[in-house]
This record gives sequence, C-alpha cells and structure tokens, in this order.
Amino acid sequence: MGTITRNVFMCLLLTTISARVILEDYEKTRNNLLEEETVHALGGKLKLDDEEETLNKILMQLKEVEINEYFKNPHRFNFSKHYFTYRDEISNSKVYKIIKRMPKGGALHIHSTLMLGADYLLNLTYEDHLYTCYTDDVFELQFSEVIPQRYCPVKWTLLSELRNASDDVKAFDAAIKQHFTLYTKEQEDIDSVWKRFNKVYYAIKSLILYRPVREKFFYESLKRFYNDNVMYIEIRSGLHSLYELDGTQHERMYMVKLYQNITKKFREDYPDFIGIKLIVTKHRGSDIDQIRQALDFARQIKREVPEMFAGFDLVGQEDKGKPLVDFLPALLEAKEEMNFYFHGGETNWFGMATDENLIDAVLLGSKRIGHGYALTKHPTLMATMYKNDIAVEVNVISNAVLSLVRDVRNHPLAVYLALDFPVVLSSDDPGVWGAEPLSHDFYISFVGVASRHADLRTLKQLALNSIKYSALDSNEKENFYNVFDIRWREFVKNEITLNS
Amino acid sequence: MGTITRNVFMCLLLTTISARVILEDYEKTRNNLLEEETVHALGGKLKLDDEEETLNKILMQLKEVEINEYFKNPHRFNFSKHYFTYRDEISNSKVYKIIKRMPKGGALHIHSTLMLGADYLLNLTYEDHLYTCYTDDVFELQFSEVIPQRYCPVKWTLLSELRNASDDVKAFDAAIKQHFTLYTKEQEDIDSVWKRFNKVYYAIKSLILYRPVREKFFYESLKRFYNDNVMYIEIRSGLHSLYELDGTQHERMYMVKLYQNITKKFREDYPDFIGIKLIVTKHRGSDIDQIRQALDFARQIKREVPEMFAGFDLVGQEDKGKPLVDFLPALLEAKEEMNFYFHGGETNWFGMATDENLIDAVLLGSKRIGHGYALTKHPTLMATMYKNDIAVEVNVISNAVLSLVRDVRNHPLAVYLALDFPVVLSSDDPGVWGAEPLSHDFYISFVGVASRHADLRTLKQLALNSIKYSALDSNEKENFYNVFDIRWREFVKNEITLNS
Repeated sequence: MGTITRNVFMCLLLTTISARVILEDYEKTRNNLLEEETVHALGGKLKLDDEEETLNKILMQLKEVEINEYFKNPHRFNFSKHYFTYRDEISNSKVYKIIKRMPKGGALHIHSTLMLGADYLLNLTYEDHLYTCYTDDVFELQFSEVIPQRYCPVKWTLLSELRNASDDVKAFDAAIKQHFTLYTKEQEDIDSVWKRFNKVYYAIKSLILYRPVREKFFYESLKRFYNDNVMYIEIRSGLHSLYELDGTQHERMYMVKLYQNITKKFREDYPDFIGIKLIVTKHRGSDIDQIRQALDFARQIKREVPEMFAGFDLVGQEDKGKPLVDFLPALLEAKEEMNFYFHGGETNWFGMATDENLIDAVLLGSKRIGHGYALTKHPTLMATMYKNDIAVEVNVISNAVLSLVRDVRNHPLAVYLALDFPVVLSSDDPGVWGAEPLSHDFYISFVGVASRHADLRTLKQLALNSIKYSALDSNEKENFYNVFDIRWREFVKNEITLNS
Repeated sequence: MGTITRNVFMCLLLTTISARVILEDYEKTRNNLLEEETVHALGGKLKLDDEEETLNKILMQLKEVEINEYFKNPHRFNFSKHYFTYRDEISNSKVYKIIKRMPKGGALHIHSTLMLGADYLLNLTYEDHLYTCYTDDVFELQFSEVIPQRYCPVKWTLLSELRNASDDVKAFDAAIKQHFTLYTKEQEDIDSVWKRFNKVYYAIKSLILYRPVREKFFYESLKRFYNDNVMYIEIRSGLHSLYELDGTQHERMYMVKLYQNITKKFREDYPDFIGIKLIVTKHRGSDIDQIRQALDFARQIKREVPEMFAGFDLVGQEDKGKPLVDFLPALLEAKEEMNFYFHGGETNWFGMATDENLIDAVLLGSKRIGHGYALTKHPTLMATMYKNDIAVEVNVISNAVLSLVRDVRNHPLAVYLALDFPVVLSSDDPGVWGAEPLSHDFYISFVGVASRHADLRTLKQLALNSIKYSALDSNEKENFYNVFDIRWREFVKNEITLNS
C-alpha cells in the first residue's frame, strides 16, 4: 500500500557570501566552491594513496593537454559531431591508453547478440555450410546440411559459392560487413537508425543461432571484454533456441547452459575473470501472454540455474514499443519472485508513455534502470532512486549512435556525475558501432562528459560502482572487490612505470 | 567575507511504496506520483479560475493532437532536426496561434542589434544615401552625403546604383538578405556558426548606426515585439555612437536618449506597453581598462537616466572570450553600484573557464544569468540561485541555432521546468534567425521542451516570472502585474470565443 513520506534529496552544502567581498576573500570563496563541487561529485570522497596520487598527476596532465587541444582546435576531435567522426582517433589518445589498461569492474548493460564487431562476424561467415538469402533488401543467414526450406524471394545459396563467384572478394566482404554495423557518416533520425539497428540485429542473430558458431562467438566476446579489462558482465539475452546443422532445435534452457559452460571454460583459461549473469529479456512489442511466458521462463532459470540468473527486462525501441504499464498485472505477479532491471526513459520525449516507463520501473522496484536518459526531467524519481540506491546504467556512445543526443557533452551523465548519483557505465551494443567493449565509453565519459576536473577518483569510483550495483550476492561482491583491488594496484604501479 | 552555511535545496516530497502493492493501489500511487511531478513543476501551484480552466481544456486537447502527431510522424515536424527545418511550419499550429495571442509579459534577454529580421532590414537598404563596400568577402554599409573615406578593397558604391545595374533585382535583394540572416539547412559547428553570426552582426550594425535609420529600426522593433504580445523589454546594448549623413558622430549618451524618446513616443501610440530598460554591454574580448570605461559609462547612465538603467553585462562567444574572472578587480569595484546580468555557461564544456563563468556570475551577485546552459552540471550553483531567487534567462532557439543543442528536447530548460527553478524565457536575437519576437520560443518550449502534461499554468507562470525577475522596481512591477492581469483576462475570454 502506498504511503507518502517526506524526504530530503540533494540537500547540498552551499556557499553563501555576504554582500561585501574583497578580492582575496573572493578567491578563497571561489576556490572553496570549486572544491565543494569536486567533493560532491562522483568519486569526490575517495581517498587516493600515494601511488594513486602519482598516477593521478600523470593522468591529469595528459587530460589537460588533450582537453585544451579539443577546446582550441575542434576540427581535429569534435564532441559536437557524430561519434563515428572521432571514433578511430580515440586510440591515439594517451589518456585513452591508460583507461584501456585500467580494470573497469563489470559491464552491467550488454546485449548478447551485439557484443562483437563486423570484422569478427565476417570471419564467422567463412564457416562451412552457411547458406544465405541475399538480395538488395534481404540478408539472411542459415547454417544447414541441405538447402534451407524457409521462404526466400531468390534462392538460398551457399555464401562461399557467392563469394567465390564474385569478381572482387574484398568488395564482397565489405558489403557483408555493412550488414553487421551501424557505421555511417552523418547522424540520422532516431527512427531511421533504429530501423537499421533492427536489420543489423536480425542479420547477426541469423548468423549466431547456430550452436557451434554461437560457442565461438560467445567465447570470443568474453575474451574481447576481458582484454578490455572488463572483469564481469551482466548479459541481457532473449535466450532463443539454438540449432544444429541437421536442423535440430535445442530447448531454450540449452542456451543458459551454453553460457554457463563456456564461461566456466573461459575462467579456466583466465582465472581472474569473475563471470557473467543473465538478465532474461523479452521484446516490448509482445502481448501480455508472451510476457507471462517469458516471466515463467525466467522463473525456471532462477530455479534451475540460480547462480546464472540476475533478473528480467524488456527490450526494443522504447518509443515504438508498449510501455511497462501495459504489462502491469504480469509484472506485479512476478515482482516478489525476481529482480527487474528495466530499460526506462530511453527517449527524448517528456511526459509520453515511453518517458513514464521510468515511473513504472521505479514503482516496480527495478534494481537498476537501463539508460534512464530522460531521468533528469523527473527530480522526484531521481530522489527516490537516490534514496533507494537504484543505479542508472549509462551508455553514452549508444545514446549518441542511436540519436538521442548528438553532442556527448549534452549527455545527462554530466549531471549524474556532478550529483554523485548512483551510476554505472556500460556500452549496450559495442560491436555494432565498432567501439571497444568498455574503454571507448569510459574515455568519452571521462574526457567528453565529465568535468575537466574529474580525475582518477571518478574513474575508480565508476569501476567500484559497477561492483556495488551488480546482481552479485554479497560473497561474490566481496570476492570481486578483492580481485579488483589486486588488479587496480597492479594497474597503478604499471602505469607509473610506463608513464615515467 | 565568505561565510559557509548549510542549506537545503530540492528537498522534494517523494513517494515511497511498501514492498507489496496490489494493482489498484499501484495505480493510485502512480497517479499520485504523476500529480506530484506536476505540482512541483513550474506553474504547478497556480490556481486557474473557471474561464482559465475552460481555455486550458481547449489548449490541452490541441496540444495532445499535435504532440501525438509529432510523436508518430516525425517526418513532418521533428524536434531532433534543425530549427530551420520546422520553423516555417510553426505558424500552422493551433497551439501556436493561441500562444501568439497570449500576453507574454517581458522579454528580458534581447540584444539591440538583432531584434528584426532580414525582410525589414532589406527595406532599410532602400533608404537614400546608402553606400556599400561589397565583394565576395566583404559587405559593409554606410550612409553618407559623399563617398565614404574608410578602407574598402573595391570602391564604395551607392547600393541603389548596384541594385539598378543588376539584371535581376530579386536575386540581388536575396543576396543582400543573406547577409542579415543565419538561415541554413544543416546545423553547423559552434565555431563556424559564431563566425557567421559575427559577420551578420557587423553587417546589420553597419546599417543601423545611422541615426534616422536606427530610429525607424527601433520603433519597428518595439512594434513587432508589441504585436507579438511582449509588453516590456530589457535590451542589452553596447550603446555605440550613432552618426548623421554629414559624418557627425553623436555622443554615446545620445543613444540612451534615443531609446528613451522613441519608447516614449511608442507608449503614446500604444499606451499599454510597459517600456524598456537597458543592460549596458561590453564585448568579452576587451581588456580590463576597456571594461572599466564601460562600467564608468554604465555609472553615468545610472546617474543621469536612472529610469532607463537595468545593469551591466559582457557579450560575445563565451568559449572564445575572456572569462569574468579576468575582470574581477573592475567588477568587484562596481558590484555595489549597479546590478549585473551576466551571461554565463553558454557552452557545452564542463569545467572550462567559460563554464565557470557561472561561478563568478553567482559570486558577483548577478541578478539573473543569461543562458546558463551549463547550469545543470553545477548543482551547488543551482542551489545558490534557487535560494537567492536568481533566474536563468533561457533562449531555446538561440541555443539550437548557435549549436549548443541539436534536439530541443535535450535542452536543460526541461529540468528547470520540472524543478520549478527560477526561469524566464527570452529569444536573444530573434531577427537573425527569423523567429517571431517571443512566440516561437514559447511554442517550442511548451510543445518541444516541457512535459506533455505542462499546461496553461506553465505558460502563465512563465509570463509572470518575466515580471517578477525583471529589473523593474516594485511600483513598476505592481503596475505591470495590473496591466498584465487585464490583458490576460481579455486573452482568456477571447480565446474561449475563438475556439468554441
């Protein structure tokens, strides 16, 4: 039952000055105010040890040089332009190189199908028995012993045959890769880019529902994330049926086991990788019966493989899908049985049903909120989340590529950082826009979104937040903190050596 | 001397719910939360009388239709695109027509040179004795009895002669108009658009420094604003010297008197126009001695024509100019003698000197802050402004055209409205982007930036805020409230009749 209580949010220290100030006092007051902003910001209360202080000095000198260059010479690296105009320059940044090597904790908002980039996916199309239904408008893939029986406006052909028959294999492969990426020169409409996004999603899905390919794909995903110093992943997955070459369809629970087994194998190869958990998803275009079935499946996973289960979520373009409120009876039934990690407010609109998903995500007790892009327009919800320590999962590059924001400096993450609002950084679908698993998002957030004054404490706190707000239980978290601590100390020592 | 006090900001009512809710309670809680958001938002506490309620119902029905159309069919009217792509469609909106007729109170952030559009400025080029220095790169204008002596890479020629000699007067005039507008199909870099902005500014300035033309220009400006139902204007002006046909230069105080006399004449013609006040400006590229001189001039105006004087400000692209902190000694000297209305935070950057102008604007006791675009990144400053009732002057279209924000739905005004932060709407330089004096900014703010639920109360509160936060003294404000009240009642009655 609803009870209304009065609470206090954002009751900040603030500095008032009397009417007459002399210059000396002015400068003192001004410095106090700047210091206060830093202390109240995310990471501002962390104490750095001597080695961390040394690295911080190095880091901030490098950051200062880079920001000043971007400020004075926006033609080289310009945050007001599309991510794709500066993406390939990021790897030249010295700050980026440090961030790349930095242990980043976990990535908590990742969709299973879009973890890897077009180059690797192209490699997978070299596997045997891959048929394609390929026209100007259609691009479907299916592994099969025999010619697939599904409808195709032309005829199903082995991709290898088409490739061999082409005059120019490089051009052929480049065209294939186009189906696996959202890369484009100019930012598009939100609806146009989502149309392309859905096409790319289905193209990739049609490639990786084949069991042996999915095993390679998933192992490689873990490896790329691990190499990017991501130590743990919460993966949103619809857990669709995998198939074998002879057409056998596996039960959906098979996919859960596959995730579990491959993660186990990966941890044997890389013992300091913490692991993964699954957030079971269903498309928000579904009807309530389909949602109920999905919730039942989630219940089953929780029952049978509890260590793999994080919770439940709905996915797909929010503005075009049904709002959470449409599924209330089903969601309220499940509320006490599992954790929710709802997408909410991934929209520019204010006061539409999509934006008000934020309200239902909070009222339904969502443990975190995915994107929450519209959140700053809802101070009452922010207050509730702040009080209940519900984190927002921010994916800056995703929001730029999917056309919510053009200039990343306008991203509401800046506000969350300034307020020390509970926030974790993730990357949503890094493969599909050719981003590094998490380092690009960290770099752009650190240099493009956060204050010029944000330093190593901000980066460390973001990594620590990803542990704190994860779906891990308290023992698992304790272990994660310990592993992180070792990795962090190594990183700090190593960077001081590399940068001296 | 600086004293630190603790204070409370944004201590909002918030709703917490117990763990178990049934559907009925859920819906009640949800509705309460939505209601709470509305009550806490700007205008949410205004009580409407019966007639206002009637108009509000009409308004909200029309708004609902329009927003649903924009939501479902973004190809017709798309806030994610440049203002210029939908500008000319605004006048077809039924909501706009109501807003156009609505008394809007005052426009408190207006630059004197850029109040009128290219069509009217073109008319002014038909005045006699107008010489031009006109090449592909240069476009200067000067009224003179004889050929101007200033440097020109070609020769000074009467514009009328060039026009008469052209094969196609329409094309010639269209080319002239190009020099008076920022109109363009695609949004540009902030630096590129500011370069064009400065060119347009100098072209227009060279046209209107001629005393008889300035008189016409200013009277026409008042008329256009008045016809847009703006009842009062605070004009930022550098108060440059006007000249006569024989080359005589007037003292700068002459311009103040000209403003005063023409406003007086205008009020004789339109007695319910409240008037104007001046905010004396100086370019932020100046050195501190020039700032001191400008402050002295401001002191002189305050002394000699106090009824015309509002305060002092610095102007020009913030990212390229000097920050306020560079002029501290001069500004602290003047602090007790006059009111400041500083521009601050008209930038995408966070933590750069330009962004930190916000800190100095607040510490220097600025009565309002111009733009304050970066303000949401500074919660401590927001708290101070909230407590001290310092309003932010928001110019949404300006920020879009001058490339701070692409999609107006991302404008921080949405946050200010949600928080009931002290805010006034203005239009900065409406002439130069061909906007109506204030109605376009109100329409876009109401339909594009504010919540779908924002209603007549939001509009009325924004108008009332423009009186409350003006530089008028308490008697003048009381009179303004009375005049506004009469105009508002007429407007409400009239709209009910028109829309029934």
